[in-house]
Amino acid sequence: MTEMRTLKVALLGCGNVGAQVARILLEDADALAARTGARLQLSGIAVRNVNSRRDVELPQELFTTDADTLVKDADLVIELMGGIEPARSLIVTAIRNGACVVTGNKALLAQDGPSLYEEGDKAGVQLSYEAAVAGAIPILRPIRDSLSGDRITRVLGIVNGTTNYILDQMDTTGAQFADALAEAQRLGYAEADPTADVEGHDAAAKAAILASLSFHSRFALENVHCEGISSVSASDIAAAKDAGFVIKLLAIAEKLNDADGNEGVSVRVHPTLLPREHPLAAVRGAFNAVFIEAENAGELMFYGQGAGGTPTASAVLGDLISAARRLVLGGPARTETTTGHVPALPIDAAVTSYYIGLDVADQPGVLAKIAQLFAEHGVSIEIMRQTIHRDTESNVESAELRIITHRASEAALAATVEAVKGLDVINSVTSVLRVEGV
Amino acid sequence: MTEMRTLKVALLGCGNVGAQVARILLEDADALAARTGARLQLSGIAVRNVNSRRDVELPQELFTTDADTLVKDADLVIELMGGIEPARSLIVTAIRNGACVVTGNKALLAQDGPSLYEEGDKAGVQLSYEAAVAGAIPILRPIRDSLSGDRITRVLGIVNGTTNYILDQMDTTGAQFADALAEAQRLGYAEADPTADVEGHDAAAKAAILASLSFHSRFALENVHCEGISSVSASDIAAAKDAGFVIKLLAIAEKLNDADGNEGVSVRVHPTLLPREHPLAAVRGAFNAVFIEAENAGELMFYGQGAGGTPTASAVLGDLISAARRLVLGGPARTETTTGHVPALPIDAAVTSYYIGLDVADQPGVLAKIAQLFAEHGVSIEIMRQTIHRDTESNVESAELRIITHRASEAALAATVEAVKGLDVINSVTSVLRVEGV
Repeated sequence: MTEMRTLKVALLGCGNVGAQVARILLEDADALAARTGARLQLSGIAVRNVNSRRDVELPQELFTTDADTLVKDADLVIELMGGIEPARSLIVTAIRNGACVVTGNKALLAQDGPSLYEEGDKAGVQLSYEAAVAGAIPILRPIRDSLSGDRITRVLGIVNGTTNYILDQMDTTGAQFADALAEAQRLGYAEADPTADVEGHDAAAKAAILASLSFHSRFALENVHCEGISSVSASDIAAAKDAGFVIKLLAIAEKLNDADGNEGVSVRVHPTLLPREHPLAAVRGAFNAVFIEAENAGELMFYGQGAGGTPTASAVLGDLISAARRLVLGGPARTETTTGHVPALPIDAAVTSYYIGLDVADQPGVLAKIAQLFAEHGVSIEIMRQTIHRDTESNVESAELRIITHRASEAALAATVEAVKGLDVINSVTSVLRVEGV
Repeated sequence: MTEMRTLKVALLGCGNVGAQVARILLEDADALAARTGARLQLSGIAVRNVNSRRDVELPQELFTTDADTLVKDADLVIELMGGIEPARSLIVTAIRNGACVVTGNKALLAQDGPSLYEEGDKAGVQLSYEAAVAGAIPILRPIRDSLSGDRITRVLGIVNGTTNYILDQMDTTGAQFADALAEAQRLGYAEADPTADVEGHDAAAKAAILASLSFHSRFALENVHCEGISSVSASDIAAAKDAGFVIKLLAIAEKLNDADGNEGVSVRVHPTLLPREHPLAAVRGAFNAVFIEAENAGELMFYGQGAGGTPTASAVLGDLISAARRLVLGGPARTETTTGHVPALPIDAAVTSYYIGLDVADQPGVLAKIAQLFAEHGVSIEIMRQTIHRDTESNVESAELRIITHRASEAALAATVEAVKGLDVINSVTSVLRVEGV
């Protein structure tokens, strides 16, 4: 057998995921070489402090603070530092030096993806980022390659494990948001500052990446309408449960026509009611899943672990081996296609159903008044259900009204809710949530 | 813009899937060209009879009975004729002429895959076959590429829609096998001669393909232990349901050590009890899903439509565009790696749990006798549950015993069941089924 070629791999960052990538590269070196056709030699790990404690014991001599020199001498660069700079500059340096780059940096891709893909195209090198969306789940490659002969019409993703864990706890135990968050923090599912997760920013970055690939266009974070879960209450969850729904934080990208009939893509993140029999409703705990609707393939779902050092390392290594195989075989890189050129639509153009909870006066004619108002706004009601509560001590009656609408434009729905608030028979609007999958 | 290159596509076969592939190639020509970087020109469709009625209206001049000439003049060949010959010879001709080949022919791959992959390697052309397993679901590419840096330990697949539909009907309505099969035939989910589906032969071919890719080795149909669902009774389903399980026909491939400690892969198809909370248990009707356990990625599931002309056409076109992009970019094909060289293990080496239903004499000491016998065979009992039935007319009591064992070797379990049959306190063994996912 002839001597195998050696490819130098530079690792930038040694956190949760990076440490596992380094461990597997060292431990599984022989098996990875057999599958790649070349030895993957970890040439160094760039970190801020070479003496920090790591999750995994790794040879001290691999560590360096000089990322720039490491990158310039590598065939393959794995960027797992996170953040915008210096990650961005190092990736550009790597690409211009002809190295293939693997990254899991969703924030960077959602902000600067397009300019990085162009750098890659120009240099003819591969930029891969499977780990940036839904951790271990192979989702970007299936969208890019397997579905390349199809037309994706809609993507619904549970792409943030922290919020799925919190919502699942609220659904299972009836806990309030704050208590479920505290529990998630205690178990390490949520960070001390949970803002990026619970306010939907993490999911929004992933939504931009999913939308770009699915619709062969380029969407950035600023194109994503984003609402988090901090305002979802235990009573919202209970009401949803009662009506046969579960509340999930979904990243949604779907092709739509706006009011003028122009085609575009609505990209958004918000808490969403899903029927309990929908495949995504069964995604429990910190798991992730992406549900895709395509013209020919129909409904597809991809399910797995969305975070964690070892699972995410699996996605990084899949990209690394694929890029390395290409270097071994020779030939140019496969690049993104952005032939779709469909614009991002504002949230007003989105078409969804609404779930609306109302505390109403218990008097004759209320239902008729509300139904009339919905009709005036062109919003059709699918289900309307009134529950009368009587306080046995005070003997005062109150009425709760739950409405699920048919699909209508976000603009019409928002206007309807505004108008409902102005009705004298309404004590309060207790919840307004979007519904998908019906 | 420079003139785009044109690639000639030959289609062999124009059944359910082939007709949809032709339709999409013609209807979506511009979008496919934009994504490929070349025009995909359907140069002809080889069929046995050019005047047969088709599901889709297609230009008559495309049809020919001369498959050989068509293949020799093509850049890309799509084989959807099924069967071994002439499909095999035409694929070999295509490869030797330097054409990339896309096929959905699971029977051919399970029988002759290794020799075809070798032909492809030698000629440096791509042989792709995503459509051969689980229809529209992108599963082969994720296993080959996305999980290339991981170690798959187990694959559990619902890969036959007909049997999943029948078992789901039996589970939902309590129907007997024969009635559920008749209903499936009436709805077009089962063929007039349902043998290949209900006896597990179709699933076995897919199991061989999944096992080969997952374990970087080459398994053929003869390595697959195969049991169908025709002996699954309504009372088996009811008993499983009662115990919190659902019965699915699973294609299983898992890494094991045999009795001598040698590593190998057990590849098998059989009806299997799954806990109702297992992600595969929620796969209803004619849908397919593949559940993968990998060392680093953990649990992954891929779900979607496993059959049907249009969904399967999506998988064929994904392969076609990927192969065509490579032709446009240049550079050699990516080939299968078979560096694992792990042997297939006989069914005796498989390690599972068993569910055993027994009709026993209602007398003291029966449970102790049976438990003693299991212990002697080294099989540990997890759950043992006795139900006493009294016939109110005759006043005769009968006892039903349900046992779920811990995981043990298939050989030990089979020997235990044989021994149980010989006990004088046993009236009959009512069911023996394997259990996974516990």
